[in-house]
Amino acid sequence: MNGTYPHRVWRLGADVDTDQLAPGAYMKFSIEEIAKHCLERVRPEFAGQVRPGDVLVAGPGFGIGSSREQAAAALVTLGISAVIAPSYSGLYFRNAFNVGLMLLTCPQAETLAEGEHIALDLEGGRVLRADGGVLPCAAIPDFLRDMVQAGGLLPQLKRRLADGSLKANPMFSIRHDTRS
Amino acid sequence: MNGTYPHRVWRLGADVDTDQLAPGAYMKFSIEEIAKHCLERVRPEFAGQVRPGDVLVAGPGFGIGSSREQAAAALVTLGISAVIAPSYSGLYFRNAFNVGLMLLTCPQAETLAEGEHIALDLEGGRVLRADGGVLPCAAIPDFLRDMVQAGGLLPQLKRRLADGSLKANPMFSIRHDTRS
Repeated sequence: MNGTYPHRVWRLGADVDTDQLAPGAYMKFSIEEIAKHCLERVRPEFAGQVRPGDVLVAGPGFGIGSSREQAAAALVTLGISAVIAPSYSGLYFRNAFNVGLMLLTCPQAETLAEGEHIALDLEGGRVLRADGGVLPCAAIPDFLRDMVQAGGLLPQLKRRLADGSLKANPMFSIRHDTRS
Repeated sequence: MNGTYPHRVWRLGADVDTDQLAPGAYMKFSIEEIAKHCLERVRPEFAGQVRPGDVLVAGPGFGIGSSREQAAAALVTLGISAVIAPSYSGLYFRNAFNVGLMLLTCPQAETLAEGEHIALDLEGGRVLRADGGVLPCAAIPDFLRDMVQAGGLLPQLKRRLADGSLKANPMFSIRHDTRS
């Protein structure tokens, strides 16, 4: 692992679907078992060779298909630091942060190469390349970065209910009684 | 309003962004005030003529831009029943359900016409046209349909904490301590 550019790229195509990420045949098993079969149809070596800190880089439409949360949780189980793609299925985007997986929306994601090592500036919303190149990403709101850091929605919620900060959460700042 | 096909279509283009939905100049005001300026740059008549039950139909990339929740809350305030588009910004998709706005992911959305009246089969994930045509949409998981029906994430959460059903929520069914 390179200290300055710690994240190794696994490069995938467009429209990676939830059945490739969490194959239907294994859905009755544990997330550890499902993770062993993650992406086996498109990258048979993936689950065996992936290392914690690696990132997935893909084309548009990442996570299309079903709403199964295991398609995001399998990547968390394998230690993937982030997915970087130009666009996501809305349901996948929702599930991913809920289970603690960081997704970066990066229009130029597909310029990254298989095996390349990169750094992530999550606060600045940027991918940093070893050649000095910078790929801008959509900003990730603080509360979603916190959610990933906490390990997902439920741990974040528990923490916030415990420390009394729930009402200060921007996620809950909209009044919901204004339809009249 | 047509009883069988109750939802009137407002037809927009691709890449409708959050600044069109909730213009930056009004962000310090209430959501009711922001809603009066919703889409005024692309459809000046919208906020004045929209009726509860109307739907927005748009091209790909609906809701790109900032993470401001008001871009979804403004449509809830105006009584919009749903947005129908081929794809969404991930952040917008997340925010929308959190504030009680239904988004339908519909590859053929752009075949719908301005002023057309349609019906929505949310459980089946379908748009129904008066000529008998049916447009398939990505299935919406039960807990997200529930969330919209409850008026958003916070009301849903309050209800579930009160009735003890939180642990049964599929949103929380993934174990988060399995990284070892």
